[in-house]
Amino acid sequence: MLIRNVMMEDGRRTSILIEGNVIKGIGVADGAESDEVIDGEGLAILPAFYNLHTHTAMNLLRGYADDMPLQKWLTEYIWPFEGKMTADDMAAGSRLAADEMVRTGTVGFYDMYFHMDGTARIASEAGMRAVVAETFFQHTIGTLDGYAGIMNGWNSRSDGRVRMAVAPHAIYTNTTESLKTAARVARDNGALINIHVSETKEEVENCVRSTGMTPVRYLDSIGLLGPDVTAAHCVWLDREEWDIMAQRGVTVTHCPCSNMKLGSGRFPYRDAIASGVRLTLGTDGCASNNNLDMREEMKFAALLAKVDGDVECLPAAEILKWATRNGAEALGVDAGEIAEGKVADCILVDVNDYRMQPCHNLISNWVYAASSDCIRMVICDGKVIFRK
Amino acid sequence: MLIRNVMMEDGRRTSILIEGNVIKGIGVADGAESDEVIDGEGLAILPAFYNLHTHTAMNLLRGYADDMPLQKWLTEYIWPFEGKMTADDMAAGSRLAADEMVRTGTVGFYDMYFHMDGTARIASEAGMRAVVAETFFQHTIGTLDGYAGIMNGWNSRSDGRVRMAVAPHAIYTNTTESLKTAARVARDNGALINIHVSETKEEVENCVRSTGMTPVRYLDSIGLLGPDVTAAHCVWLDREEWDIMAQRGVTVTHCPCSNMKLGSGRFPYRDAIASGVRLTLGTDGCASNNNLDMREEMKFAALLAKVDGDVECLPAAEILKWATRNGAEALGVDAGEIAEGKVADCILVDVNDYRMQPCHNLISNWVYAASSDCIRMVICDGKVIFRK
Repeated sequence: MLIRNVMMEDGRRTSILIEGNVIKGIGVADGAESDEVIDGEGLAILPAFYNLHTHTAMNLLRGYADDMPLQKWLTEYIWPFEGKMTADDMAAGSRLAADEMVRTGTVGFYDMYFHMDGTARIASEAGMRAVVAETFFQHTIGTLDGYAGIMNGWNSRSDGRVRMAVAPHAIYTNTTESLKTAARVARDNGALINIHVSETKEEVENCVRSTGMTPVRYLDSIGLLGPDVTAAHCVWLDREEWDIMAQRGVTVTHCPCSNMKLGSGRFPYRDAIASGVRLTLGTDGCASNNNLDMREEMKFAALLAKVDGDVECLPAAEILKWATRNGAEALGVDAGEIAEGKVADCILVDVNDYRMQPCHNLISNWVYAASSDCIRMVICDGKVIFRK
Repeated sequence: MLIRNVMMEDGRRTSILIEGNVIKGIGVADGAESDEVIDGEGLAILPAFYNLHTHTAMNLLRGYADDMPLQKWLTEYIWPFEGKMTADDMAAGSRLAADEMVRTGTVGFYDMYFHMDGTARIASEAGMRAVVAETFFQHTIGTLDGYAGIMNGWNSRSDGRVRMAVAPHAIYTNTTESLKTAARVARDNGALINIHVSETKEEVENCVRSTGMTPVRYLDSIGLLGPDVTAAHCVWLDREEWDIMAQRGVTVTHCPCSNMKLGSGRFPYRDAIASGVRLTLGTDGCASNNNLDMREEMKFAALLAKVDGDVECLPAAEILKWATRNGAEALGVDAGEIAEGKVADCILVDVNDYRMQPCHNLISNWVYAASSDCIRMVICDGKVIFRK
């Protein structure tokens, strides 16, 4: 595929050749041999998004309950609704979510929910990348061995674009034993691990009360942390906990809209960045956001980082990196940059859209001013998965 | 104009008759006589937005300078750029802004900038409502009498949809004398007054140092506050200052994205609401946001109000009211609600858009999940000013 005369991040216009799933050449001659020629006039090429924390089936709960305390929200609305959802319902929710993600420029996602074989199938059919992690609690950990069979069946037949993983839900919904079991089964099967960590202050206080340690110290003490782990939220980590996360190679996923809407607290941007940990971005599920729009999520993160006066914290190019390159790394894809040799996960954006003009700075416009509706084409693994 | 089978806020479908600039009937027969029939199938009708604080010509500075300290941003980038802008440049910026506002569902705006007769003309041509306020500093206050002539010329020939007003920029850029002069000339000419108040903590400290009073107490002491005044930002008011603002009938405009991006601080939502003051929403200019998207601005306000745990603060329906009905009131228009007898300022939104489904709650979806791209039609003063 040859994309002609397209704008790069630095404003210059060039032609880009994609061969197989790789960006083969930048600055190639317009006459280069290719099956498809795309006219990039008026378009910019940017890396696509990876949504590193979501619950796709929760698209069915969009707007079902808002603006109320967490306990009421969970016990009176979310859990009763979830209790009625069948595997087919969950697949329907994931299908809605895949449609929304593809249209808004997301090519890969990390999902944590239930009946995840259905979600894996939908991601695969949509041409997306995904790691889908079945969620386990202390009372469901007994079903983990059965799940391992489904997971291995899927992981051995897929081409690696979609994988299944294991998600012990959180410390407060598991025992030390069930957390260790989840980690052991995941590692025995070469699967990734996903977990919610220190989302609320109350969670930290309860963990200290019951284990004598804060969540990250406790998880480290039981051997759960490692480069195969992605931890969502991490709102209440202290500086030493950030260092532990970095030393263990854990990936952290920041979910600004969810943290704001549920009143969880403000992410400690400076400590997180200083630790050198791999930082990624996620929307969380549609019940606590209420969309899967990574462009909007970038703006929320970049502005929340600055509100108390630290205006140089998390500039536009940095949050774009969290949402693209860092997410790709965490999913094990050599993408997230428009550069020769990188996997072709990218989007084409209309730079003539009224929100993208004038174009003093393409990245600033994309993060702060644009809308995901400026997207004209989405390419995942070298294939066009959405055209507008 | 008859809009058939359109969804109302509460989910029911009905037909709406607009006669002249007024919503004449709700629930009228489909066969009612009308010049134009609009099929509302798949659409919801919602009140249009009023952007109560912006600087439209700054659309030309979108993305010109971000992520840096305020003084550097102002002195090295914004002011030098503004210094080169001619009246024609400013009109061009306002034209870009009017296009953006109309497409994103805003029918009215309150502008504070320079060469405002050009902006007034552009608002008028776009079919929008506007109050456009020429900005005065202590060193330009001498030109106020000349401006009064231009303002009166415009205000006497317009139909009231677009008016010109007077904006003493802020306390720290004016003297007591120039502030009093601005207020006197505005009031002598029946014009509204716009001013930046307590945007930063430093501004409050400087005001206390030079006058012995905080900004609201100082402005009240010199007789500036009244129901003809709209004050932008008001981030650092104490509770008694909120009560003063309410007693004087001042309108306050909250600009969450700008306050976050410039690191100005967090708006005191609970104190502001408790005071009973009229609260409105604004995007500020494109150099500190960087767009004029009131749907996105609603989500920022509603989430910022909750981040530290007060999750019941500023629910979706309340912030929608700030962005619609309260803004209409401040501009002197009996609109902002879809009800019989109200002025027809409204938008039609695609409820089948992927971001609006499922539709458990239309207002929640509109505030938290949607995009301004879901807008299919914008009506101002009974006339269609945008169709998609």
